[in-house]
Amino acid sequence: MRPSLLAAVAAAALLPVAAASAQDRSAANRLIDEGMNHSQVMQTAQHLTDVIGPRMTNSPAMRTAEGWTAEQFAKWGLKNVHKEGFAFGRGWSIERASVRMVSPRPLQLTAIPIAWTPGTNGAVTAPVIVAPMKRERDFDKWRGQLRGKIVMVTMPGTGDEQTSAPFRRLTGEDISKLDLYVQPEHDPDSADRRMKRLDFAQKLDAFLKAEGAIAYVTQSYRDGKLVHGEGYLFGRGETPAVPGIELAAEDYRRLARLTKTGPAPTIEVLSDVRYDDSDVNAYNIIAEIPGTDPKAGYVMAGAHLDSWVAGDGASDNAAGSAMIMEAARILAATGQRPKRTIRFALWSGEEQGILGSMAYVEQHLASRGRPDDAPQSGLKRYYGWTNRWPITPKPGYGDLAAYFNIDNGSGKLRGIYAENNPAAVPMLKEWLSPYASLGAGNVVQRTTGGTDHVFMQAVGVQGFQFIQDPLDYGSRTHHSSADTFDHLKGDDMRQASVVLAGVLLAAANADKALPRPPVPTQPATTKPFDFTDTDD
Amino acid sequence: MRPSLLAAVAAAALLPVAAASAQDRSAANRLIDEGMNHSQVMQTAQHLTDVIGPRMTNSPAMRTAEGWTAEQFAKWGLKNVHKEGFAFGRGWSIERASVRMVSPRPLQLTAIPIAWTPGTNGAVTAPVIVAPMKRERDFDKWRGQLRGKIVMVTMPGTGDEQTSAPFRRLTGEDISKLDLYVQPEHDPDSADRRMKRLDFAQKLDAFLKAEGAIAYVTQSYRDGKLVHGEGYLFGRGETPAVPGIELAAEDYRRLARLTKTGPAPTIEVLSDVRYDDSDVNAYNIIAEIPGTDPKAGYVMAGAHLDSWVAGDGASDNAAGSAMIMEAARILAATGQRPKRTIRFALWSGEEQGILGSMAYVEQHLASRGRPDDAPQSGLKRYYGWTNRWPITPKPGYGDLAAYFNIDNGSGKLRGIYAENNPAAVPMLKEWLSPYASLGAGNVVQRTTGGTDHVFMQAVGVQGFQFIQDPLDYGSRTHHSSADTFDHLKGDDMRQASVVLAGVLLAAANADKALPRPPVPTQPATTKPFDFTDTDD
Repeated sequence: MRPSLLAAVAAAALLPVAAASAQDRSAANRLIDEGMNHSQVMQTAQHLTDVIGPRMTNSPAMRTAEGWTAEQFAKWGLKNVHKEGFAFGRGWSIERASVRMVSPRPLQLTAIPIAWTPGTNGAVTAPVIVAPMKRERDFDKWRGQLRGKIVMVTMPGTGDEQTSAPFRRLTGEDISKLDLYVQPEHDPDSADRRMKRLDFAQKLDAFLKAEGAIAYVTQSYRDGKLVHGEGYLFGRGETPAVPGIELAAEDYRRLARLTKTGPAPTIEVLSDVRYDDSDVNAYNIIAEIPGTDPKAGYVMAGAHLDSWVAGDGASDNAAGSAMIMEAARILAATGQRPKRTIRFALWSGEEQGILGSMAYVEQHLASRGRPDDAPQSGLKRYYGWTNRWPITPKPGYGDLAAYFNIDNGSGKLRGIYAENNPAAVPMLKEWLSPYASLGAGNVVQRTTGGTDHVFMQAVGVQGFQFIQDPLDYGSRTHHSSADTFDHLKGDDMRQASVVLAGVLLAAANADKALPRPPVPTQPATTKPFDFTDTDD
Repeated sequence: MRPSLLAAVAAAALLPVAAASAQDRSAANRLIDEGMNHSQVMQTAQHLTDVIGPRMTNSPAMRTAEGWTAEQFAKWGLKNVHKEGFAFGRGWSIERASVRMVSPRPLQLTAIPIAWTPGTNGAVTAPVIVAPMKRERDFDKWRGQLRGKIVMVTMPGTGDEQTSAPFRRLTGEDISKLDLYVQPEHDPDSADRRMKRLDFAQKLDAFLKAEGAIAYVTQSYRDGKLVHGEGYLFGRGETPAVPGIELAAEDYRRLARLTKTGPAPTIEVLSDVRYDDSDVNAYNIIAEIPGTDPKAGYVMAGAHLDSWVAGDGASDNAAGSAMIMEAARILAATGQRPKRTIRFALWSGEEQGILGSMAYVEQHLASRGRPDDAPQSGLKRYYGWTNRWPITPKPGYGDLAAYFNIDNGSGKLRGIYAENNPAAVPMLKEWLSPYASLGAGNVVQRTTGGTDHVFMQAVGVQGFQFIQDPLDYGSRTHHSSADTFDHLKGDDMRQASVVLAGVLLAAANADKALPRPPVPTQPATTKPFDFTDTDD
């Protein structure tokens, strides 16, 4: 090192934190100005929800969203905008659907077709029968009784009531409770149980078809006239034969009670759905702000762009997608030239099994192999992925310095889940520090699951999620017919976009990368002596 | 007073409360056994809601309910079961209704026809226009722009979120806050303001028709995909010309936003409704347990049987109707022979202006006159009733010792609102005392409004309501599409029926009647110096 440079370094060393903070805070203020005073995030979210609508993987609307988001990235000056495909299955969308009680009295019911089930080919009218089935041995009870019937397959139960506030924000105490290292759980049978549920859906369909049932009906798992319509038989060649409908809980239970007090009600079902087999692949959308140091690797943020179909996929996850896009726009608009590349991803296939980010891991980070006889499409193609060993890192494995995921609704960012990576905490705290007064300064150890960071974690790449104010995500909007733009909060969305941009910029410019965990090897089960009834 | 009688009175005076309590508690235990262990209240409520369905005044379902409830009373041994008619207007019911967005993308919307508006005569498809109108001068802004359009007349706003628990029970502290004498308000203009809103509905209809609008759409006042559909133009000869539809708030606001970001959406509206003009009269159902002393007068309990049409009218007010019927059944089944007659009323026309109980007051209790030019049916027939003086008591005025009303959902009874009648408190407390351990021992001074005791109060007859646990009545079910049997709670309904039976029996057997307030005379306005803009 040259003496003059050494002197400069020594002088700077007297105030290293202050100097770094001054630099961060100066960039932070530009991000805050762009994101708070010139925000586009609500316009982006509105286009994704109101105009494009729900974005079921491989549906025509999702194809539109793939194109539109890529165009927006390019328009805002992002580079290397492209899509990356992975095997998925059929497209499916609803053209028209209505369900109506015909007798004992006329009544419109609240209903939605179950995803990927076939339409009714015009309106069909038939009496209902309550025939709850959740395992194969339940079939025997109903054999011979279902011909010409519309079969109500859910046990109705008695409903529940909301005794806590549906819309809420996290208190400091709530957040402090999240700062806890959690024993990782290793249960090799859990994937089997998921696949058993998929197998059961196929067996139920075959049974209903063989018995001559006209359609089947499930009950919404939320009260208050909300419906959801999730279904998983999206692979080519595994489309069910029998149309399926989810009814609002109130409507389902009314039908069930009426079967107890009088002749079974007759209902009229119209489900007009469309399949799209033009392309078996689903696509992740990728865009970048290139780094100035080609050897420094990249940091990444992602959110899934696909959604379920009952609402407009607003809080789940147009919100996260719009935050990702807005963070990209803010960084581009403010002319940031980070050391590391910042890569943005809008995932597909998340709702059917976190498939888009799994495909990214397979394509870029690490291989876990796939059996030769894996199906060409559908969820079973991805069966058992996390149970296959060893993990074989790919050449790009070391380049991804940190991944940040957004998929917990539209609430403001309150900090980061360090996801059982205690060594990362000091750097995460430092990156968040300019945004503490925006409410986002917290780093907690708790792990989170169920979304696109988990398969990064599963191969040893640091994938984080943000702590977000829950708002009404869990209580009302998640997957439901109320998941519309109305329930997104602009102040929250703007704050989240700014904080996300800030964390990405800090991570991309950090002198050192985050400490990495080791590449995972086959763990010991944490349930060596557990007995579980996997029949239910 | 004779000496022997005096001695007996003196002996009794040593233990008057204990003796009365022993007697009450013995009867109370029989009522509790019948009502808790042999209850029929949920079966009654289920029949009213699931089987008969929503009971709009004068609709075919309400006619069915009138007949069925009278049959039940007679079957249970009630006497003098009959119906009492009063002028109302047209019957109206929904046969089929659906609304669907056609462009920019296909989407089923959640909607309900507005009561008493005409159908669309098949499906109609047209672009929407957002044209908020809430006073006549707003018409000028939209004149010439509405031809061939479906007109969105509500200002959309931005929605709201539930930050308190939708389902709750009253704490002791909640109840103690209700024990407060409240200054009665006298505002002679308030009735005028209600009539102005009705006038505006008629003027809006005439304006929309003249402008060539195809239909109009309002926005639900609750978020979360709930709809209601209230309308008030039920008089013969005042039926609107233009079909009206209420849309779920999420669906309405989506349409409104889409008009801002692109071409106005096109929607398809199908509203198939039926009028029934077979009888202009609505009917209250009356039933009795005759008193043993024909000169002792009567006590009375009532609940409105009619409902709005979006749900099944469960918490509002099949719940109260079923409690009234069950209290009658319990008293009859346990063979009670009260001193005073106990009269039960199931009111009609409550939802359109508390008209059934007003008719009862006019027929049995006191006259306030009616102008010669009052319309033969419709809400305007009843215009200005509480502003007409003097009140002329009828011969039966003094016979009604106390009226108890139920119309606050299905929650358990926690006590009685004394309705600014402090002199009644000691006796009300005594009547409730056997049921204190059931949670119903409270008497508070607060007044309540908006239901069938108010016109009793308005002529000086003691009309009370019960304090009830609110459950999700105000937050979710009241008038909404979620007002179904699912949200009624059996334990609450059984408790309420028992307590109601007990209070009625105690009131019917009480040695002395409640102290009566004076017959009201024209009061001084409590707003002598207020200026109110009545334009909105």
